[in-house]
Amino acid sequence: MNTIAVDAMGGDSAPVDLVKGAIEAKQVGVNVVLCGDQNLIKPYLDNVEIPIYHYPQVISMDEDPMKAIRSKKQSSIIGCMQLLKENKVQAVFSAGSTGATLVSAITILGKQKGIIRPAIASVLPTLDGGIVLLDSGASLDVKPKILFQYGVMGAKLAEILFNNSNPKVGLLNNGEEDTKGRDVEKTAFKLLKSSDLNFVGNVEGRDFATGKADVFVTDGFTGNVVLKTMEGTAKLQSKLISKSLKENLFKPVLPAVKKALQPAKDTLNPDKTNASYLLGVNGVVTIGHGSSNVEAVKNAIIYTNNSVNKEFISDFTSEIEIT
Amino acid sequence: MNTIAVDAMGGDSAPVDLVKGAIEAKQVGVNVVLCGDQNLIKPYLDNVEIPIYHYPQVISMDEDPMKAIRSKKQSSIIGCMQLLKENKVQAVFSAGSTGATLVSAITILGKQKGIIRPAIASVLPTLDGGIVLLDSGASLDVKPKILFQYGVMGAKLAEILFNNSNPKVGLLNNGEEDTKGRDVEKTAFKLLKSSDLNFVGNVEGRDFATGKADVFVTDGFTGNVVLKTMEGTAKLQSKLISKSLKENLFKPVLPAVKKALQPAKDTLNPDKTNASYLLGVNGVVTIGHGSSNVEAVKNAIIYTNNSVNKEFISDFTSEIEIT
Repeated sequence: MNTIAVDAMGGDSAPVDLVKGAIEAKQVGVNVVLCGDQNLIKPYLDNVEIPIYHYPQVISMDEDPMKAIRSKKQSSIIGCMQLLKENKVQAVFSAGSTGATLVSAITILGKQKGIIRPAIASVLPTLDGGIVLLDSGASLDVKPKILFQYGVMGAKLAEILFNNSNPKVGLLNNGEEDTKGRDVEKTAFKLLKSSDLNFVGNVEGRDFATGKADVFVTDGFTGNVVLKTMEGTAKLQSKLISKSLKENLFKPVLPAVKKALQPAKDTLNPDKTNASYLLGVNGVVTIGHGSSNVEAVKNAIIYTNNSVNKEFISDFTSEIEIT
Repeated sequence: MNTIAVDAMGGDSAPVDLVKGAIEAKQVGVNVVLCGDQNLIKPYLDNVEIPIYHYPQVISMDEDPMKAIRSKKQSSIIGCMQLLKENKVQAVFSAGSTGATLVSAITILGKQKGIIRPAIASVLPTLDGGIVLLDSGASLDVKPKILFQYGVMGAKLAEILFNNSNPKVGLLNNGEEDTKGRDVEKTAFKLLKSSDLNFVGNVEGRDFATGKADVFVTDGFTGNVVLKTMEGTAKLQSKLISKSLKENLFKPVLPAVKKALQPAKDTLNPDKTNASYLLGVNGVVTIGHGSSNVEAVKNAIIYTNNSVNKEFISDFTSEIEIT
């Protein structure tokens, strides 16, 4: 049976929501351990037996990740990565500083052979499945070859997650014409086009709903902004819908309509499917929203546990060679 | 009375939808003229009297704008700009190549004094008003000082459009902490912070729904991707909602619910408020979606006409000085 290490100190409402989420995940059968300050964790455990690995230091969201990982050897995220490195756990989940998770994973687990930069791959909902968006925040500035490697890693993840032997890879750009983009997109386009990937060319934000691609490749700055824009738009639309219904619908019908809308709402709720993969490192690491609440933490831990045996961390060395 | 020049040859369904949209705008009282190939325009005019300025050349979406503007002197967009320059019209609307509109505006109308780069400012809906996002596609790569100037121009537009004497300006970034972003955002942050603008710091895509800022400043690559992501997300959510309602709601209630949802749908429909401003040039120029249909063209022309007398093109020379 697999065990998931949870960074109890990472996240806006750490440790309380992390501990409670871990308890809920344990209650549905997931093996978890917690890394963090045991004095802060224990009060929330309510006598539930979850092993604690005592790592009293915390890396905050606004610390420089490089410096923090170097100076805070007793931080909870380092504890998680050590356990994974030593094979005491099979995956790590953190909702803390993305930079610290990234740097500690690279430092302790190491990058996969040939991978220049690890990427955060977010799995986003569509009408009848999902898409992979990467990078959604690991590296803000990238070179064309890095975007190409994201395509390779993202395609593998899509293949495994969506059971799709030939996922379509698109390059997120400011237009669909082949000539669009900055220099980095123009060169990456050529690399992707001449590769063995099922490259469908440039894609746009509006293609999140069209099925034009299964994998959306972009730099971490754009990917991160896109992710949060999707969230913001979904929230805005939900509010507009509530307002419209309240103003225009016969009141007694409202509860039934709201109930009928719930599945649509759940699909776009980041608390329901709240985990992104850190690809390109030697181990299964998932990353949650900083604002993860108890439900989000629980779902992310379950999701992480379900991911452990999916072999999306393959040997990419032959695929990422550019000829 | 003001007159609007419409680029009849620009847009995916030009000239037919452009001509029909112009006819509909004329029918509600807007003075319009059409620039383009008279042989292609006339068949759609149905004897409605709209002046045609014969400019037979067309610049397509995938042409290099610089070269096209230099070589195609008889293109419809050049015709529009000439009319505006000569004060024969008071504004230009085009749904054609954004690059060609930008380059022809700079070449013929000229940039406003002190402005390094014009920007496309899109007005986006919120729960109870709107926000300005700029740049949404004029310049893909920018320097910090350019982002600062976008803040100045965007604030002026927000002031006029939303009747808000002190609009909040935010820098779109990959996190809200002051230290976030690439080098360009880090330096732009300092310039914006030390300016007279009502700068609220870094904002994220999720703030489109929170009211944290009235003006969202970013480079044209990110802005363009954001705009299309909002569109894609809204469409995806609409589809999810339709599906949810169909599966879970008592059928006879459906028509009433759909009707009640219409206002929310309309708010996020780019065909209803389909025009962005080109700021930083000497004249009122608005830009529509390439996929503008008849309704979108009509609404954009009306919108453009309503914008002519709003004095958002002020003298920015003192405000854009960096001390």
